Amino acid sequence: MIMSSFAYIACTCCGKEYKLDTWQQRCSQCRGELEVRYKFAEPGAVRKEFLSRKRSRFILQRYSCCLPFNFKRLNPALSLGEGNTPLIRAAGSNDLGIDIYYKNEAVNPTGSFKDRGTIAGIHRAISLGVKKVGTVSTGNMAASVAAYAARAGLECFVFVSKNIKEHKLASIIAYNPTLVKVEGDYGELYYRSLELGMQEGVYFINSDDLFRVEGQKTAIYEICEQLNFAAPDYIILPVSSGGNMAAVIKGLEEMHAVGLIDSLPQVVGVQAAGCRPIAASFAEGELNIKRFQNPRTVAQAIANPCPPSGRRILRKLLQGKAGFILTVTDAQILAAQKRLAKEEGIFAQPAGAAPLAALEKMVREGILKKAEKVVAIVSGSGLKDLSVINTAEADILESDFAGLRAILIRGKGV
Amino acid sequence: MIMSSFAYIACTCCGKEYKLDTWQQRCSQCRGELEVRYKFAEPGAVRKEFLSRKRSRFILQRYSCCLPFNFKRLNPALSLGEGNTPLIRAAGSNDLGIDIYYKNEAVNPTGSFKDRGTIAGIHRAISLGVKKVGTVSTGNMAASVAAYAARAGLECFVFVSKNIKEHKLASIIAYNPTLVKVEGDYGELYYRSLELGMQEGVYFINSDDLFRVEGQKTAIYEICEQLNFAAPDYIILPVSSGGNMAAVIKGLEEMHAVGLIDSLPQVVGVQAAGCRPIAASFAEGELNIKRFQNPRTVAQAIANPCPPSGRRILRKLLQGKAGFILTVTDAQILAAQKRLAKEEGIFAQPAGAAPLAALEKMVREGILKKAEKVVAIVSGSGLKDLSVINTAEADILESDFAGLRAILIRGKGV
Repeated sequence: MIMSSFAYIACTCCGKEYKLDTWQQRCSQCRGELEVRYKFAEPGAVRKEFLSRKRSRFILQRYSCCLPFNFKRLNPALSLGEGNTPLIRAAGSNDLGIDIYYKNEAVNPTGSFKDRGTIAGIHRAISLGVKKVGTVSTGNMAASVAAYAARAGLECFVFVSKNIKEHKLASIIAYNPTLVKVEGDYGELYYRSLELGMQEGVYFINSDDLFRVEGQKTAIYEICEQLNFAAPDYIILPVSSGGNMAAVIKGLEEMHAVGLIDSLPQVVGVQAAGCRPIAASFAEGELNIKRFQNPRTVAQAIANPCPPSGRRILRKLLQGKAGFILTVTDAQILAAQKRLAKEEGIFAQPAGAAPLAALEKMVREGILKKAEKVVAIVSGSGLKDLSVINTAEADILESDFAGLRAILIRGKGV
Repeated sequence: MIMSSFAYIACTCCGKEYKLDTWQQRCSQCRGELEVRYKFAEPGAVRKEFLSRKRSRFILQRYSCCLPFNFKRLNPALSLGEGNTPLIRAAGSNDLGIDIYYKNEAVNPTGSFKDRGTIAGIHRAISLGVKKVGTVSTGNMAASVAAYAARAGLECFVFVSKNIKEHKLASIIAYNPTLVKVEGDYGELYYRSLELGMQEGVYFINSDDLFRVEGQKTAIYEICEQLNFAAPDYIILPVSSGGNMAAVIKGLEEMHAVGLIDSLPQVVGVQAAGCRPIAASFAEGELNIKRFQNPRTVAQAIANPCPPSGRRILRKLLQGKAGFILTVTDAQILAAQKRLAKEEGIFAQPAGAAPLAALEKMVREGILKKAEKVVAIVSGSGLKDLSVINTAEADILESDFAGLRAILIRGKGV
């Protein structure tokens, strides 16, 4: 952080302020979600920092002017090279007429966008002096926290639901955390873990952890840089807990506040029709979240029925006009996953392809207009769940050597 | 390529020269492996180019001074952001006393080092005017070529062995190539595909394709840059076809030729004990390769029993003293895979962890000495084959809410 800025923590609901070293994750006054805020005394200095060429590849250093860390205490040895992900302009037969870019977060060290937030959370944990971290997650975040904890030499606890499918455990187990299948309400477990962690000195880097959100927002900084600070019209991303959507909105607001972008893109959160708690409230103009009953979607990374940052997002969308929420069906998600791979060469996990499904819906519904510029965030790698690829259904040819020439000439024969 | 350099093709065995636009992959005189060579008229200009700050993230542009492409014809739209991978200094309890770095190629767009070579191969194919590409592979390379072909809008043929396991197909099928299960000798298929491809206008970007090798060597350029041109003592990498090891040696020789590094690291190729055709010949001082019978290893990415670049590697090692070959057992590979994940936070596919297994062997055997500097190349992502992670054997706890506090206090309880 440059000397002229000042960071503190505030409630996103009632505005109550806290010191930067609090362990709190919710407002003691109104239970609202907290966030880190900055007083940028010299926006010009922040701009200059962003435009400087001699910059670190370590995202917490590169964006230190807008992060709540003491620069001198940043430890590049904890980094796995997170961030620095490519922004890829759509190459496929772009029959939609839209100027589409994909921010490919799947190439992060553990295969998802979570790594940006985790490196920030790990630094936070260390600055608080703890030796143990944890998370409540069954997927991307669990693998990410386990990996970074392993690297930092911190003990790591991963709480998963008792009903987790065995095949989802492998990519977490690889990093050797203490893995606990927990019986009881999973939404409740999120808050219970924070409470127990605070009491027992275990820093839980959950999905809307204050510092995780600060790390996640660096994806937005990168997008702005990669577009030479010409803001897109829309940024579309999958939404589960709401933590990353909050980070995206926050990152854009900060870029705008210091004058690095002239306009604020509309932020579009995508939920699966089979698990749409935020979308349901948004549609009704309701600021509260109702738990979504019987969540069921192929996009498991966005299947949170009880999103902890849901209310915060709703306030931003309904009161702040920051954007909106769309839902897409599993069939649309799987079709978008296929299209993204076979036209762009990007193999996303289903949740990561949901933004393309939403984009197609926005075109159909006339929301998106020709030549508008859109960034779709590909949140995680298709390699995370290969079971959704139907190999039995694929058109696989068989041949001996003698038949190969005909195949090369004919191709798929379509 | 800067104006002062000149690229041509030559046989690595007899030296016969070819023009750059030949489709040949083997010497018409002696069947030796061909390679691209450069006459660097001004090594100083190459050095200057490398040390320049204003450089593209697109590897074919960034290293154009040492690549056989016309700069003006390079197409960044074909890139998926390959390369630019992190070099991570070992953080784990480094009880070996060695200065270890991991070059994490797993974070390439399709999860392996192959993407560097594929983007070069795709450019080559396009410069030859073809609309169809292909490859013979059952793993990393198949996914990589299918992805880049999809992006470039080229038709793609992937030839796999008839006996391929179904679960290996998913990450290839995702990109929708024409996939052919071929009956017949798999080693022979490599050469047959090149022959048929040349006749039918299908450019096969196989493992030791001349231009693929040029792309692969960029990993070495990056390593040199990341170490500020202080060459390590050893570079260790897994070896299958030999194409990538040839690229590594070539990249180092070029860096040395233009004076960017002062010394040539020893290059250590690692094979699995269960499939060690190059190691077997190396041990006997034999320049030819004998097909390895009944290959069997958990590291499927390095299970080529008949490596097409084997002889070329043997010449470099036995005659050129470029390095050596080591073998490691499957048990050592799996132990290294676990260690890499739980101490460094890097989850590699088994082949990608083989260099760490070899490094440990080099320490045990007194080859590696304290304070020596080693770069281990992590060739591909652990997400590629989650079936090697034994979830049944993992120590997973179960608890209700009431039991969580005790678990946080006790940890794994070891």
